[in-house]
Amino acid sequence: MEQPQTYSPFDFIIFGATGDLTTRKLLPALFYRYLDKQIPAETRIIGAARSPLTDEDFRGRARDGLNQFIQEADRNPEKIEEFLTKIHYVSLDGADPNGKWSSIEDLLNSKQANPVRIFYFATAPRLYGDICDNLSNKKLLTKDTRVVLEKPIGTSLETAQEINNRVGKHLPENHIFRIDHYLGKETVQNILALRFANPVFERLWSSDSIDFIEITAAETVGVGKRGGYYDGAGALRDMVQNHLLQVLCMVAMDPPISLSEDDLRNEKLKVLRSLKPMTEDMIKTDTVRGQYTTNEQNGEHIPGYLEELNKDSSNTETFVAIKAQINTSRWSGVPFYLRTGKRMAEKTSEIVIQFKKSAWSLFPTAPEPNRLHIRIQPDEGVSLSMQVKDPSKSHTSLRSTFIDIDFSPAFHIRYPDSYEGLLMDAVKGDPLLFIRRDEVDAAWKWIEPILDGWARGVVPLSQYKAGSWGPQEANELLAKEGHIWHEDMP
Amino acid sequence: MEQPQTYSPFDFIIFGATGDLTTRKLLPALFYRYLDKQIPAETRIIGAARSPLTDEDFRGRARDGLNQFIQEADRNPEKIEEFLTKIHYVSLDGADPNGKWSSIEDLLNSKQANPVRIFYFATAPRLYGDICDNLSNKKLLTKDTRVVLEKPIGTSLETAQEINNRVGKHLPENHIFRIDHYLGKETVQNILALRFANPVFERLWSSDSIDFIEITAAETVGVGKRGGYYDGAGALRDMVQNHLLQVLCMVAMDPPISLSEDDLRNEKLKVLRSLKPMTEDMIKTDTVRGQYTTNEQNGEHIPGYLEELNKDSSNTETFVAIKAQINTSRWSGVPFYLRTGKRMAEKTSEIVIQFKKSAWSLFPTAPEPNRLHIRIQPDEGVSLSMQVKDPSKSHTSLRSTFIDIDFSPAFHIRYPDSYEGLLMDAVKGDPLLFIRRDEVDAAWKWIEPILDGWARGVVPLSQYKAGSWGPQEANELLAKEGHIWHEDMP
Repeated sequence: MEQPQTYSPFDFIIFGATGDLTTRKLLPALFYRYLDKQIPAETRIIGAARSPLTDEDFRGRARDGLNQFIQEADRNPEKIEEFLTKIHYVSLDGADPNGKWSSIEDLLNSKQANPVRIFYFATAPRLYGDICDNLSNKKLLTKDTRVVLEKPIGTSLETAQEINNRVGKHLPENHIFRIDHYLGKETVQNILALRFANPVFERLWSSDSIDFIEITAAETVGVGKRGGYYDGAGALRDMVQNHLLQVLCMVAMDPPISLSEDDLRNEKLKVLRSLKPMTEDMIKTDTVRGQYTTNEQNGEHIPGYLEELNKDSSNTETFVAIKAQINTSRWSGVPFYLRTGKRMAEKTSEIVIQFKKSAWSLFPTAPEPNRLHIRIQPDEGVSLSMQVKDPSKSHTSLRSTFIDIDFSPAFHIRYPDSYEGLLMDAVKGDPLLFIRRDEVDAAWKWIEPILDGWARGVVPLSQYKAGSWGPQEANELLAKEGHIWHEDMP
Repeated sequence: MEQPQTYSPFDFIIFGATGDLTTRKLLPALFYRYLDKQIPAETRIIGAARSPLTDEDFRGRARDGLNQFIQEADRNPEKIEEFLTKIHYVSLDGADPNGKWSSIEDLLNSKQANPVRIFYFATAPRLYGDICDNLSNKKLLTKDTRVVLEKPIGTSLETAQEINNRVGKHLPENHIFRIDHYLGKETVQNILALRFANPVFERLWSSDSIDFIEITAAETVGVGKRGGYYDGAGALRDMVQNHLLQVLCMVAMDPPISLSEDDLRNEKLKVLRSLKPMTEDMIKTDTVRGQYTTNEQNGEHIPGYLEELNKDSSNTETFVAIKAQINTSRWSGVPFYLRTGKRMAEKTSEIVIQFKKSAWSLFPTAPEPNRLHIRIQPDEGVSLSMQVKDPSKSHTSLRSTFIDIDFSPAFHIRYPDSYEGLLMDAVKGDPLLFIRRDEVDAAWKWIEPILDGWARGVVPLSQYKAGSWGPQEANELLAKEGHIWHEDMP
């Protein structure tokens, strides 16, 4: 986000305002932007949900949420109360055409209404179409209205297209902001700078120098309260189709001709369209699906997936590893290993660029290949592994070391949450870091054959112990190519 | 040096033992190797000089010197006394065939004598030939004898050849160790690892990616007590012919086929022989010579060169800047800017590799080119300047940052002085990091036309204020090519 930037006042309407996302992410993000003086005085934040709450009730929930989810140092009661005065609530089922629409109409048609209007859909995606129909019928979709759609956009190409069609009936594409919070992460955006503002890296960024690339998004938590949704979705839909493929696009895309929204997204689309389609044979050899089982660690019982779900059986994957290939001049022959899972050994999202080993070595022991780690979370930063002379040994002894770019201390500032920048982009009307419709389609087109193959039982569901790095099959996937996952690298 | 390595006991005879080098560098270096258990019990260190001192006198001087020049934490009186027992002294003018040779003959022909024998010449170089003649006549040059020659090896090609001829009459080339302490520096040796054990750098190491290279050796001190010698030598002979050209070789050489002494030195020789010979026109445009003048800084008077010398005039340069060119496929078109001076703004020896700017920029402001700093002293390390996204600004704002490899903290060890490793290499008989005769010749062949041109007055002697970065002409030398010295870089 731009720090000294002034925004026009805006009305920010959240459908699904009593949900977790609003409390944990949206309100804290807006509060931080308020602290940074980016929320003009006339701005209004309007929560909408079915629960019959008053403005005061909702502000009370918001106050509790802020005090829980913002950093302790920022819990300034005076600032929080100022911020809360901007918050309103309407009791309304956005999907119901006969709902109490007058409440929101009154707010949005009043003299206090701001021209810039954001509808944030934090509801079940199947309601997006209905809500849009209703907003349109009530003539609430003005020319300065943007809608923000949370994932998942559908559960298949067909259902995604249905959602996009219904929303697209009422709004032009560049007013539809499909959010993927991975694109709000500083390090993910930094990939652009790393690659395109540092000729030393740009020169290395192809199959000429790169051996393989790993993209991992590992969580230590289980499905928790999301079990109901998750069991119908699985890791492939929940993480790979969106977050991992978006990160892949940032890593793999050709240089865009500019940083304008369409030039950048055209390049991402090219990557998605260049993904080698997965045949049944490839699904068999190049994909792994797993589900975590009960484990005991340090005397602590870690529940398995079925135990968390309280079910006897489930065919849903909580872990995915895929060897993806990109059919371009730049990337042919370079495997992109995508991996995500719940209840894994570490919480980490990171990209590992493994450079090629030199076939020649001047030194008695062959040097380790160079490796660039791009850490997305929890600690954002970049490090390069290098070989240096070991000062305590002979002239020809090498040792590995890491050189670090830890962005956050380098700039001595708090790291904004990924939602903060993205919400303000929506306010500004800048869709650069949001997903364009054709990207969603292309991602589903590549994912769907895998889903279908799995549904046909092409790949057995492997088990992995909760708290591990996933099933053994994920290691074998890389071992076939002589590769290993970064946590096993020396 | 190898830490857990055991050496055979040796006799280490220093000619010029009452001089500064012995006190400041040689004895402290040997003491540190003693602390690291690399000096076997039977080893003897024999000082030789004209002064009539007893063993005890000389040990007293050694004790004082150690207590001054080793780190406070290492001043263990017990260890120092143990070390001093290894020290002997003979009063002998090594250049005088009629000197008291019996004293040293007694020591070296006694039962206590060690087969491995190092004669370290810390005298005036014009005496090296005479000393060798005498050692030979006295039959003290055994098959396990190495001689170490301190710089300067001559003051011209002819005088260098004369010294090398006279020493070479008595010893094979691989027993003649011409020392250049810059090659003993950890970072200089690390250039080999950096370049040849890190494919990411090796790929960038040519005119394809590199714009220009700076090699600076700047001192803040003046000539001090060395004025007599220095005024007859000047910075070109004192620093460029040896140290700076050696560093240039390490940076510019092609990959050697092995790290054996001759393979490495063959590659260095190729660099020296590829230096574009300096014509009179090139000397005029591509060389700068300067002399420091009195200055006042923070209320402190800093004497000029003439004041220090107590002379009315001198034509000797205390500063040199040269644009050197290397006529090879790898380096054609890449200027190597060599610079050295006394009484400069900072004490620093460093190499700056300036990578090429991309002609294309995705970002609104053209990114700064990447830059690799290799710091030789005082703090050894390597850093790479990079462009990253400025997290406090828009998606397209860049900021420069540095990523650091500071070898010393990375390994949590004291940095050995450059003499320590080199002395033990001489003990071991490993000449890898010493200068071969043909390198000396090739360096003088390139330097001599510059000396001659300057003697003919082709380049006026510029003045620079003591405590500055040198004369304005040195900036102009780079400005002509659109380049700047690293201290002025953003």
